[in-house]
Amino acid sequence: MSDMPAAPPDLAHIAHAELLTPLPDESLRFFTDLFGMEIEHQEGQSVYLRGWGEYQPYGLKLTEARRSGLGHTAIRAWSPEALKRRVALIEASGLGDGWIEGDHGHGPAYRFRDPDGHAFELFYEQDRYVPPEHLRPRLKNVPQRHVDRGASVKRIDHVGANRAFAQDVLGFRLYEQIVLDNGEETGAWMSLTIAAHELIYTADHAGGHGRLHHLAWFVDTREELLRAADLFVDHDVPIEAAPSKHAVAQGMFLYVYEPSGNRVEVTTGTHFIYDPAYEPVRWTAAERARGQAWGVKTIETFHTYGTPPLDGTVGPPIPPTSQIPNIEAATTV
Amino acid sequence: MSDMPAAPPDLAHIAHAELLTPLPDESLRFFTDLFGMEIEHQEGQSVYLRGWGEYQPYGLKLTEARRSGLGHTAIRAWSPEALKRRVALIEASGLGDGWIEGDHGHGPAYRFRDPDGHAFELFYEQDRYVPPEHLRPRLKNVPQRHVDRGASVKRIDHVGANRAFAQDVLGFRLYEQIVLDNGEETGAWMSLTIAAHELIYTADHAGGHGRLHHLAWFVDTREELLRAADLFVDHDVPIEAAPSKHAVAQGMFLYVYEPSGNRVEVTTGTHFIYDPAYEPVRWTAAERARGQAWGVKTIETFHTYGTPPLDGTVGPPIPPTSQIPNIEAATTV
Amino acid sequence: MSDMPAAPPDLAHIAHAELLTPLPDESLRFFTDLFGMEIEHQEGQSVYLRGWGEYQPYGLKLTEARRSGLGHTAIRAWSPEALKRRVALIEASGLGDGWIEGDHGHGPAYRFRDPDGHAFELFYEQDRYVPPEHLRPRLKNVPQRHVDRGASVKRIDHVGANRAFAQDVLGFRLYEQIVLDNGEETGAWMSLTIAAHELIYTADHAGGHGRLHHLAWFVDTREELLRAADLFVDHDVPIEAAPSKHAVAQGMFLYVYEPSGNRVEVTTGTHFIYDPAYEPVRWTAAERARGQAWGVKTIETFHTYGTPPLDGTVGPPIPPTSQIPNIEAATTV
Amino acid sequence: MSDMPAAPPDLAHIAHAELLTPLPDESLRFFTDLFGMEIEHQEGQSVYLRGWGEYQPYGLKLTEARRSGLGHTAIRAWSPEALKRRVALIEASGLGDGWIEGDHGHGPAYRFRDPDGHAFELFYEQDRYVPPEHLRPRLKNVPQRHVDRGASVKRIDHVGANRAFAQDVLGFRLYEQIVLDNGEETGAWMSLTIAAHELIYTADHAGGHGRLHHLAWFVDTREELLRAADLFVDHDVPIEAAPSKHAVAQGMFLYVYEPSGNRVEVTTGTHFIYDPAYEPVRWTAAERARGQAWGVKTIETFHTYGTPPLDGTVGPPIPPTSQIPNIEAATTV
Repeated sequence: MSDMPAAPPDLAHIAHAELLTPLPDESLRFFTDLFGMEIEHQEGQSVYLRGWGEYQPYGLKLTEARRSGLGHTAIRAWSPEALKRRVALIEASGLGDGWIEGDHGHGPAYRFRDPDGHAFELFYEQDRYVPPEHLRPRLKNVPQRHVDRGASVKRIDHVGANRAFAQDVLGFRLYEQIVLDNGEETGAWMSLTIAAHELIYTADHAGGHGRLHHLAWFVDTREELLRAADLFVDHDVPIEAAPSKHAVAQGMFLYVYEPSGNRVEVTTGTHFIYDPAYEPVRWTAAERARGQAWGVKTIETFHTYGTPPLDGTVGPPIPPTSQIPNIEAATTV
Repeated sequence: MSDMPAAPPDLAHIAHAELLTPLPDESLRFFTDLFGMEIEHQEGQSVYLRGWGEYQPYGLKLTEARRSGLGHTAIRAWSPEALKRRVALIEASGLGDGWIEGDHGHGPAYRFRDPDGHAFELFYEQDRYVPPEHLRPRLKNVPQRHVDRGASVKRIDHVGANRAFAQDVLGFRLYEQIVLDNGEETGAWMSLTIAAHELIYTADHAGGHGRLHHLAWFVDTREELLRAADLFVDHDVPIEAAPSKHAVAQGMFLYVYEPSGNRVEVTTGTHFIYDPAYEPVRWTAAERARGQAWGVKTIETFHTYGTPPLDGTVGPPIPPTSQIPNIEAATTV
Repeated sequence: MSDMPAAPPDLAHIAHAELLTPLPDESLRFFTDLFGMEIEHQEGQSVYLRGWGEYQPYGLKLTEARRSGLGHTAIRAWSPEALKRRVALIEASGLGDGWIEGDHGHGPAYRFRDPDGHAFELFYEQDRYVPPEHLRPRLKNVPQRHVDRGASVKRIDHVGANRAFAQDVLGFRLYEQIVLDNGEETGAWMSLTIAAHELIYTADHAGGHGRLHHLAWFVDTREELLRAADLFVDHDVPIEAAPSKHAVAQGMFLYVYEPSGNRVEVTTGTHFIYDPAYEPVRWTAAERARGQAWGVKTIETFHTYGTPPLDGTVGPPIPPTSQIPNIEAATTV
Repeated sequence: MSDMPAAPPDLAHIAHAELLTPLPDESLRFFTDLFGMEIEHQEGQSVYLRGWGEYQPYGLKLTEARRSGLGHTAIRAWSPEALKRRVALIEASGLGDGWIEGDHGHGPAYRFRDPDGHAFELFYEQDRYVPPEHLRPRLKNVPQRHVDRGASVKRIDHVGANRAFAQDVLGFRLYEQIVLDNGEETGAWMSLTIAAHELIYTADHAGGHGRLHHLAWFVDTREELLRAADLFVDHDVPIEAAPSKHAVAQGMFLYVYEPSGNRVEVTTGTHFIYDPAYEPVRWTAAERARGQAWGVKTIETFHTYGTPPLDGTVGPPIPPTSQIPNIEAATTV
């Protein structure tokens, strides 16, 4: 029998995420110059940024804070009714914080924390982006002119946090998971749409709670992702995991650290789940030990590093994690 | 106010299409050798074929017939309840034909014709594909080994027929349309998911009814689509429209004729519609006259040719439509 | 018997080209903002521009002039001795103009005109590019940081002029040509290296002499070329020929007009000629009438338009040439 | 001062390589089914195989032998005169073995061994490939129809052996090298053309002599190389190094073992050296320790494994080298 909900989800997609940074100037330069995002709005300690392909005004709220990490994840509902249904379920769970008035670009939102401590907001009313003259596209079905700056990310793709009431209470569909021999689930990939994942939970092997694992942005092609890697090398962005292909969901990945230490990913891929009764794929520890799609093993920091770091440091892990620690220096073809 | 339905759709996706061919051997060779599809089953006058990325057993039912054209389009519902809801709406419209027992790979289906005469089937129960040993993939989240033969199409992508109760009765979402100055709608792109289109209606300028415009298959990358064009040239497949980029939905296209004359497309692109309240994009005649995304004008046969041809011929239009008819022969750089 | 010279050529490659423009500000903005080139030097009425992958200081000298067109093409010799050998052959042909002192970035050059009137310069001494701090690459085998601006062209690729002593006197190798049934040669692709062409001659069907057909710049991948087309559309750059694949040399093309009316190409492809005794490929008129690699016919202006225009106009041909002139407006899928 | 020869080289390109295999059936299936090569000829214990883009009849001679490794490398000269010049230099070096009558597809060849013991043959007379009907391409400037089977490799690209009279006696141009702090050169990349490398020498840290490091085949695009990795995974081909980008020469790589244990590479990239007076790039041990272009460290076996293996084994190193040995099993995102 399938774990799929009997009906399509009430929630439509991740509308934006709020990222916290103790180094706001450096982080802002990173997202504008190297990720190629546009500043859509500024208010208080926050800058609202957008990828060129987002219909909503922004997909990232970058907020100055004492510690790095995830401020909150905002999810848009399919309708006012769908929103009410989900809020009722959350309130019943006892984890709800209540309604807030809204924020730049969207209407009233219901705020809550998941059992691991990650903050979320749900809303329905969402402004649509209106580009200024210099960003108006020639094709009317694109929200904004494609910028030729940095990695030119298109839109926020998914949020990776560290642990699941997303499926039961929020109605996410579980597509893939890792289950150890002792039955412990250490990773889960969930989505609201046919896209292969929008929310990822992973076990935090460093013992943290409510931390950010990574935020991911989408580009249209693998070539753009490979080009982003060249760009990051030229700009001394620490690369945690060089471009390769995930086993889970079959997407390409490129993981780097933004200046304040948050892990961010550039991703692409077209692994659609059309099956309404999809059986989640369960990977065992032995299967995962074979590495990613092409056999590349995952770097150890992937299981232990999150933001905010448990030791209170600011900035990327130092020394910058190398991808394969134990290789002799000398010669290499 | 948006034309979007207040709730997510009851129907999940196009499960398969039935294509009719008076030249069954030639058409079969085309889909196996040049599109790279696998034969999953044969029964009666039909061969059931699949792209490597389809979770269901097949996406194409190829059936011998006196005339080319579309047999029917099969759509899978999200649940038994969702199926019942839609069947009730269709019966109320007076266009229903009634239940059939099912077919290879799926359970009971409700059959009907849209007002233009295209046949459809709706069902929920769908077998899941089990690959034979030689096609078993190494990664368990892929239904079948990727074949290295022909264009290696991944899955059926969309069906293009000729005119719309899809939106009202079936619950498709309208994403883009062409509306002439006199108010006549001559094209409409509709979807059940965030994918930019799954069902396309276009006005039949040749005066036909219920004809097939084209069937489209998805590949993951633009490079695969460009490679498919090389392949088709080497095998004398008549190319109606060489690779270029659509204005509508921003996907790449490559249109060719299979041996019996049906128009088939290889397509790719990642233009997702995440907005639950998307305002359909309306293109005017003047805007369309500017051509596709990069200015390439559409070939005239695109507005007049469909299958079955009105003149009763079998095979691709002859002389094979050239893409730009009025250019001097001689020299060309 | 082959037309190939018995020995490798004395000349190494096209070092730069000088392009003339009556609209210097607009042309400069085009090459910096949209082609993504860097200004390396300015002197008199000229700006010296470079692609990110050029070892020499610049590949384009953009010079203000009353008329558009090609100023000259500069070719670097393999050695001082090789330079002397070729100069002796040119002097014997009676077409030599004599030595000039050099220019920014290179030493003494021998100037001459080919029989059709195109100016050339040959030299050996060439400065090597030293990037300023902000353009220094992280990998020491790349001359400059890859810029993320516009089409990010890598280097000048080839020069297309309008007619051949290049082979006999300069030692170019002839790789492909078009020969009409009456024996007239109307196109020729020549190279100094394994790269498929560096110098192209085409018959000028408008009756001009010594005009520029086009200048081409290389990008590394087809995806970059497709992306450049999107960029040009967004910036209203008139596209003469949308991205497609050449039959000759198998490269991808994208032809546009820069603001003063010169035709410029973005190209890529890896069709290497390793055969030292290569037999030139001869295309007949009938073969060429089949169109480019994927059947796209060439736009008529390609045979008649060059710079400077014979009618004295400045700027791209108006109305901007559409790619397929005779298609009804209305509806288009 | 440059290390470049004052004149273009006498030798044109690597015409083919002979690979030895103790498992001839398995190796043959690998090259036909997974690399997508065609059998052009069979004779004695050898099968002659070709990539679709080779003008010569074959680029690989696969020969049954007791041990794996490199039989010989065959290089074509620019002309009969050039061949004589190089043979005279080799004879003067005392390493010449003398003339042989030729082999299938080419004329008389001069055989010799380099100081490390690798066998070479030089010749000028080379047959040109004539495709059978079913492999005849539609475009006359391509030697053979592009096959849609396996990785569809285009042509042999380069030979990697283990140490340098190639530069002095054969006239190769040195483009890049690794020089340790103690002055020892441990790697050298050499070419006869603008292509970034055709012959690579690396120090054999396992103490072997005359062994094969790897043979490389070219594909046109990075997408084809990524697709080849998917294919190899599906067919259990041991991947030694997953797709990533070289620092040296900027090409993409994918290293695998063919069944008898020889290391073979799929490569692509368009890093051309146009500078006739190129200064070889010298990498230090510290620079190399930073890893490849995107920071990926090289696997240790790259410095120690060659064929034939010193321990006499047949087949890929067992256990198949994993790419990053010291990572915990369990969970991985």
